[in-house]
Amino acid sequence: MFTPQPIGFVFSPYKDAAAIPKGLGAKHQAEGVLNILLEFEPGLADIEGFSHLFVIWVFDRSNGFELIGKPPTDSKAHGVFATRSPHRPNPIGLTVVELLRREGGALHVRGVDMLDGTPILDIKPYLSGIPAETLRRGWLAEAEARNE
Amino acid sequence: MFTPQPIGFVFSPYKDAAAIPKGLGAKHQAEGVLNILLEFEPGLADIEGFSHLFVIWVFDRSNGFELIGKPPTDSKAHGVFATRSPHRPNPIGLTVVELLRREGGALHVRGVDMLDGTPILDIKPYLSGIPAETLRRGWLAEAEARNE
Repeated sequence: MFTPQPIGFVFSPYKDAAAIPKGLGAKHQAEGVLNILLEFEPGLADIEGFSHLFVIWVFDRSNGFELIGKPPTDSKAHGVFATRSPHRPNPIGLTVVELLRREGGALHVRGVDMLDGTPILDIKPYLSGIPAETLRRGWLAEAEARNE
Repeated sequence: MFTPQPIGFVFSPYKDAAAIPKGLGAKHQAEGVLNILLEFEPGLADIEGFSHLFVIWVFDRSNGFELIGKPPTDSKAHGVFATRSPHRPNPIGLTVVELLRREGGALHVRGVDMLDGTPILDIKPYLSGIPAETLRRGWLAEAEARNE
């Protein structure tokens, strides 16, 4: 395997978890900054051309994991791999953000759902979505229907 | 940080890297299986409801990293965070697959681009795409235009 090392840290308006809009279907419009460490800054070359990025990060304030749990958006429990729970066997988070602008090693983005100071492991270009007509959203669609 | 542990391994038709369709824009239609370890199988509950999944995995046969490199799809070099290069500071891969069916801990999927035996770190439900009209694809769109 490998030893994870931060390539940078998230500057986010969320100082504690209670403030973050919760759940698989939550909309995230908060702006933040991905501050990439100076030694990794050359790896950002040409990133400005992409409108959206995948950010892979660490749930660094989450302890242990729970294979079955109740997400905030549903009254039923689901498997951890069918949710975005922070209590995962590998505490890795994944967020799609919109890149607003770059200033050196600072990527100003919209759509952060991480806590302030979250370590970033990787950034990748986001390329395309699955067409809406072929996408099924499992228990989330059912929970949304029940809450209507 | 944390110590990565495999939650399972990929069964893939690709036995060596040369066989994998390369590049940021490559289309992946190969079928494979995500074999989840028995101890983590309860975490798959309700995953059948989702048509597409994010798979987070390890480039376990990649050594070292390169911050600037030339991807297979372009004659120009780009920053590693603007490409899907395996030579990343944290050797983490990300693939969106279509879930075809589940048999216990075996998730039969379409769209694998990993080598056979690749360790899996996490699986998350894929929920939605960014509308095509708001998506910019950076150097890849330029490289495609040059190759037309």
